[in-house]
Amino acid sequence: MEKKAFQEQYPEIYSYCYGCGTSNPQGLRIKSYWEGDESICKFTPRPYHTAFPGFVYGGLLASIIDCHGTGTAAAAAYRAEGREMDSIPPLRFVTASLHVDYIKPTPIDTELVLKGRVKEIKGKKVIIAIDLYAKNEICVKGEIVAVQIPEVMRPKS
Amino acid sequence: MEKKAFQEQYPEIYSYCYGCGTSNPQGLRIKSYWEGDESICKFTPRPYHTAFPGFVYGGLLASIIDCHGTGTAAAAAYRAEGREMDSIPPLRFVTASLHVDYIKPTPIDTELVLKGRVKEIKGKKVIIAIDLYAKNEICVKGEIVAVQIPEVMRPKS
Repeated sequence: MEKKAFQEQYPEIYSYCYGCGTSNPQGLRIKSYWEGDESICKFTPRPYHTAFPGFVYGGLLASIIDCHGTGTAAAAAYRAEGREMDSIPPLRFVTASLHVDYIKPTPIDTELVLKGRVKEIKGKKVIIAIDLYAKNEICVKGEIVAVQIPEVMRPKS
Repeated sequence: MEKKAFQEQYPEIYSYCYGCGTSNPQGLRIKSYWEGDESICKFTPRPYHTAFPGFVYGGLLASIIDCHGTGTAAAAAYRAEGREMDSIPPLRFVTASLHVDYIKPTPIDTELVLKGRVKEIKGKKVIIAIDLYAKNEICVKGEIVAVQIPEVMRPKS
């Protein structure tokens, strides 16, 4: 059986995010998976995601770190409850804060690999650290504080 | 005479950024201007820049904060040297680190207004704080540390 990405298990009403929603045809539709205790996402930037010719635009790097982070936060919260991601009630996280350090320029002509790890789970808050690699070198380090979606943002099903 | 945006004064070889490059037809092409000591950028998200229906995707917010920040950093560096932005040698900045706090959900059905201010200019490093408003309310606060573009990223003219 093919392994489903975290984002493929979000309820349909939560799947319109530009970064990771499976129901957003214009979006980036990143996909994240567990590999042991790490979460992994692989993403190939499009040729126009340039900062300067040859290098990836920092906003895209922040964006995929953000969505891989909220996805990992949700997956970690289900795991902490001993539940499958497609079980109910759904758990869906948004970003309270995002920090990104650009360690070195990220080349655009290659697949990027993001590796996430859970730093903390406490109540409705999850902190995820993410390293982004290109050609086996760390180019960007990110950290997000994710919180369960506030009532005001919650889509009405 | 119409006022030129910071980004319209970048040398052509520096104008391919997905977030702000005037030569990137697929990009967001944000535009930033001085208004006194503040830098202002107005941007209307596209309908598909959703996080959840009705709200803007955090990655887009981080992206426009990032580009408005590097643009403001460049403009501030020229101003500190008493030079026009289209004078030579060109000054162009990249992001060393980006921090974004999402204060409240950002509605998607309105123009966003970003206000930047210079916190520090020191050698090749500039720190810019940015508040992002929707409907006159602060939704996001960002801070970027920008540095002059490293030699390895510098396009060959």
